[in-house]
Amino acid sequence: MRHIYVIGIGTGNPEHVTIQAIGRMNAADMIFLPTKGEEKEKLASVRREICERFVTNEKTRIIEFAIPQRKTVDRSYVESVNDWHATLARTYVRLIDDLPEDGAGAFLVWGDPSLYDSVIRIIERARELGAVDFDFSVIPGITSIQALAASHRIPINMVGKPVEITTGRRLVAHGNRADSTVVMLDGEQAFSKIDDPDAEIFWGAYLGTDDEIVRSGRLGDVAADIVKLRAEARERHGWIMDIYLLRKGRDFDDL
Amino acid sequence: MRHIYVIGIGTGNPEHVTIQAIGRMNAADMIFLPTKGEEKEKLASVRREICERFVTNEKTRIIEFAIPQRKTVDRSYVESVNDWHATLARTYVRLIDDLPEDGAGAFLVWGDPSLYDSVIRIIERARELGAVDFDFSVIPGITSIQALAASHRIPINMVGKPVEITTGRRLVAHGNRADSTVVMLDGEQAFSKIDDPDAEIFWGAYLGTDDEIVRSGRLGDVAADIVKLRAEARERHGWIMDIYLLRKGRDFDDL
Repeated sequence: MRHIYVIGIGTGNPEHVTIQAIGRMNAADMIFLPTKGEEKEKLASVRREICERFVTNEKTRIIEFAIPQRKTVDRSYVESVNDWHATLARTYVRLIDDLPEDGAGAFLVWGDPSLYDSVIRIIERARELGAVDFDFSVIPGITSIQALAASHRIPINMVGKPVEITTGRRLVAHGNRADSTVVMLDGEQAFSKIDDPDAEIFWGAYLGTDDEIVRSGRLGDVAADIVKLRAEARERHGWIMDIYLLRKGRDFDDL
Repeated sequence: MRHIYVIGIGTGNPEHVTIQAIGRMNAADMIFLPTKGEEKEKLASVRREICERFVTNEKTRIIEFAIPQRKTVDRSYVESVNDWHATLARTYVRLIDDLPEDGAGAFLVWGDPSLYDSVIRIIERARELGAVDFDFSVIPGITSIQALAASHRIPINMVGKPVEITTGRRLVAHGNRADSTVVMLDGEQAFSKIDDPDAEIFWGAYLGTDDEIVRSGRLGDVAADIVKLRAEARERHGWIMDIYLLRKGRDFDDL
């Protein structure tokens, strides 16, 4: 039976790739790489570097495929994502069908396949279509949360306390509720819109790449600086990918 | 100046080690390994395997050090941890002081140094003691959350929804609040004490090792089985380390 590896490759530092990921890339007959009109050139070059550096099996072929634009007109966000996944599942079936009958293919995923990524969901849909028989496995990768914490050299959680991982939109809607809140997918600088000046922010962009920028401090002191820095960096690079942690209180402050 | 690497090494599968982790292990003059009376033999053997397989620099020495027992009598959990960190910080100073003046040392951490681990905190305390001058950096590793998701081949979050990472004690106290809740550090099978039979549970123990066990299903259907399975496994191995995800709803159920 055909087998698909869904491989997490980290978020920008090729050295964050695991031994298992390298093994599975080299076990694949084909590595399927999406090409998007809007794909960030820097990320594409990191992915190229990972393939060039770590794929040593001469039989492994790199197969590029086009990712359709997500249609957003006249539908909600959830409808839009649902339709997009349905389209992509048909694309996956086509790719997988091109594998030898007992061959292996690989999809490379930024960060970890389990967190704010949809390749696993699309793979499951492709299986449900029933047009090609295959199994799959998942290889974990370093997420941007871990890259953020490593660059700031901090624990994410306070001793014995919980962590919330959420989106910018939800942070604005619900406020900064948890002791530790990681905000991903925030295109609107939600940290500057909440009223919690004494929270600490640990922010990072382009994490793991040569262009990495990090800033931290009391939210009331640094929020405006980060908004400015972010706008400048986005202008300079043409795109930005960032993430941050908000923390309240201190370890052992309940002593 | 002396430099310390705090290196995440994953949770039981040596292949989850990253290229960066291997590089830093080999850049260290000394790798400091804790020996605990209660240390799980299986985990110790995985760590030995990681060192034997990946440390190729003949100048790198493995230095074992004793970890004191955490004192729990007549103090709260937080006091107990605080005192224990203070003691360990003095131990770290002694170890780091043994390094050459421009040498590098490494502490290996299960999972990722940023999540429910205290090496970073103890390193910061050791610096504050001021007895030996050193800098440090953090190398991320694959967490048990990621190993759990990879083994179950599932996304942790529902599309666009948040994730809570918490402890067993807090799950019992606050109930199952989030769409996706990851429970770590649960010695009391909190999942069997909450009233949410329709939630889905994805459970795993000894993740990444040869002894890995995973179970999933509707909480109301499988909770009792998992409690039984867990007790048997704990009896057989003499210890257990497990983690689980509780999920409510389905992707796109708000369509």
